[in-house]
Amino acid sequence: MNESFLQACRGERASHTPVWMMRQAGRYLPEYQKVRGTIPFLELCKRPELCVEVTLQPLKRFDMDAAILFSDILIPIEAMGAELSFHEGKGPLIANPCRDAEAVGRLKVAEPANDMPFVQETIRLLRRELDVPLIGFAGAPFTCATYLIEGGSSKFFHETKKMMFGQPGLFHRLMDKISETVIRSLRAQAEAGAQALQLFDTWAGVLAPCDFEVFALPYVQRIFRKLRDLNVPLIYFANNGATLIDLSAQSGAHVLGLDWRMDIGDAARRIGRLAVQGNLDPLALFLPPDELKERIGRLLNGARDACGHIFNLGHGIHQQTPPEQVRLAVEFVHELSAR
Amino acid sequence: MNESFLQACRGERASHTPVWMMRQAGRYLPEYQKVRGTIPFLELCKRPELCVEVTLQPLKRFDMDAAILFSDILIPIEAMGAELSFHEGKGPLIANPCRDAEAVGRLKVAEPANDMPFVQETIRLLRRELDVPLIGFAGAPFTCATYLIEGGSSKFFHETKKMMFGQPGLFHRLMDKISETVIRSLRAQAEAGAQALQLFDTWAGVLAPCDFEVFALPYVQRIFRKLRDLNVPLIYFANNGATLIDLSAQSGAHVLGLDWRMDIGDAARRIGRLAVQGNLDPLALFLPPDELKERIGRLLNGARDACGHIFNLGHGIHQQTPPEQVRLAVEFVHELSAR
Repeated sequence: MNESFLQACRGERASHTPVWMMRQAGRYLPEYQKVRGTIPFLELCKRPELCVEVTLQPLKRFDMDAAILFSDILIPIEAMGAELSFHEGKGPLIANPCRDAEAVGRLKVAEPANDMPFVQETIRLLRRELDVPLIGFAGAPFTCATYLIEGGSSKFFHETKKMMFGQPGLFHRLMDKISETVIRSLRAQAEAGAQALQLFDTWAGVLAPCDFEVFALPYVQRIFRKLRDLNVPLIYFANNGATLIDLSAQSGAHVLGLDWRMDIGDAARRIGRLAVQGNLDPLALFLPPDELKERIGRLLNGARDACGHIFNLGHGIHQQTPPEQVRLAVEFVHELSAR
Repeated sequence: MNESFLQACRGERASHTPVWMMRQAGRYLPEYQKVRGTIPFLELCKRPELCVEVTLQPLKRFDMDAAILFSDILIPIEAMGAELSFHEGKGPLIANPCRDAEAVGRLKVAEPANDMPFVQETIRLLRRELDVPLIGFAGAPFTCATYLIEGGSSKFFHETKKMMFGQPGLFHRLMDKISETVIRSLRAQAEAGAQALQLFDTWAGVLAPCDFEVFALPYVQRIFRKLRDLNVPLIYFANNGATLIDLSAQSGAHVLGLDWRMDIGDAARRIGRLAVQGNLDPLALFLPPDELKERIGRLLNGARDACGHIFNLGHGIHQQTPPEQVRLAVEFVHELSAR
């Protein structure tokens, strides 16, 4: 078992800097496209044997130090009662957006064993195959709330903020229900075998720090507090969250994920005793190999004083990325960080 | 003449904190919708008498301390040879995206007197009407380059970064041409009567600081250096630019515009002798009046030690904003900052 990822999460010194990449199982891989070509995305997420196949694809090609469950951050949202669908090029759509007290009241707190059994089944199957740690995950409550309220992706998050600012009580009730679902989902994933848990707060970065502190952070804190007894590393990734980092450091996470906009050395200095995960611009994988190597070297050097560093991208792999460049990046991280 | 805006730009103490709002002339105003209902957006931008009317609309309703020319950041791009069009709900489209040496070679450096005379004419007409300062503007080179390369708005700026990382020489040639066009356009605006000039770098925030420093900042610096002799305040707004702020402070601007993600007090401390402009979340205009007032009070207090503060939103006014809330916000700023 390759323990480097878990060691770095705990702030221990590993033989090298571990690396995994967000969306490492994804559309840039022809073998993923082949599986996806035969089946709609949401159905794929519910077929454990296919999720296992897809999760393992990048590990067969590249020397990744961790695997991440193939699933979607909106799976628990669907289990709460959202009518979810995915449309090529449009992202997720929710046919029954949740914008009033009645709609919030109708949402149920999901029960993983009944409502998302395929997630835990995928994890159980994966653990038999893997010799690197397996990361489970969920969407953070604020991010889930934006999808529920907007009915999909958004540019300005107008409906979300209108509810936040105009009906804060209702917004908090919604966040309560989502948080309870997320707690149950992550606990079930850990009990099924996930060895680390990551909360993706994809849209946290649209909040001013004063609003993040009131409307988003308390729920992240509650989730991590309730999961502390599982004794698995807890990772919080607040995308576009540079101005939230001092608050994110109080989330209760063991590891903070960083998007690519922030200097990793600056971040490490500010968050003190937490490990950092990140943060190469995914598009930097289009650099010529020698420049890619130089940039990875600078990144590793910037993170050298961090209390644990897991190399990752600052966002998911772009689908046009040549797999060969991913292979090179993994190789460079291992070569340049070998101790 | 109300000088408070220009005083704040120069770091002088005014009788109150001046206020204007990005997109103050826009779709949230029924009188704007009425003008727009009769004419396509791009045509409106080229009709000086209508641009004057639309620019003045918010000043008739609200006690704004500055006016901003009604135009679009892509007007100079069209003048360079881009086949620009606007489509409701889709934003700008450029039919001939600029992705290779031939396309970059074909672009011309625009000549404002010939290629955008309507902009200067609008400014000349406006100056006869206004008793507050008039702000001229342009898109910053990086932002203009993204539209030219992507052919419109983008989510990941994949084509832009592919050129940046894969063909840096070509990218720099493109930035050269855009910068020269921007310099000419802003100079012509000042000569026509614009009393301050703002560069909008809407997409700067998608760059890691190390890339911003190499691919975007040098062009902003060149533009401001070349315009220094005009003796008008120069404002740089790098949207989503919290992690770029130390670099932006070296841009040569007199004033830095801030989006809403950053605490304005933190920003003011970091940029030292520059004035700050910003930075209320535009969606905070949906707060109940008493909370809106409280938030504006906190913002003014946060900026109290800044070397000049111009109150603004952190982004354009959202089109669903009730005009009454805009009126209240302006009133609160004036009331709470009166000296």
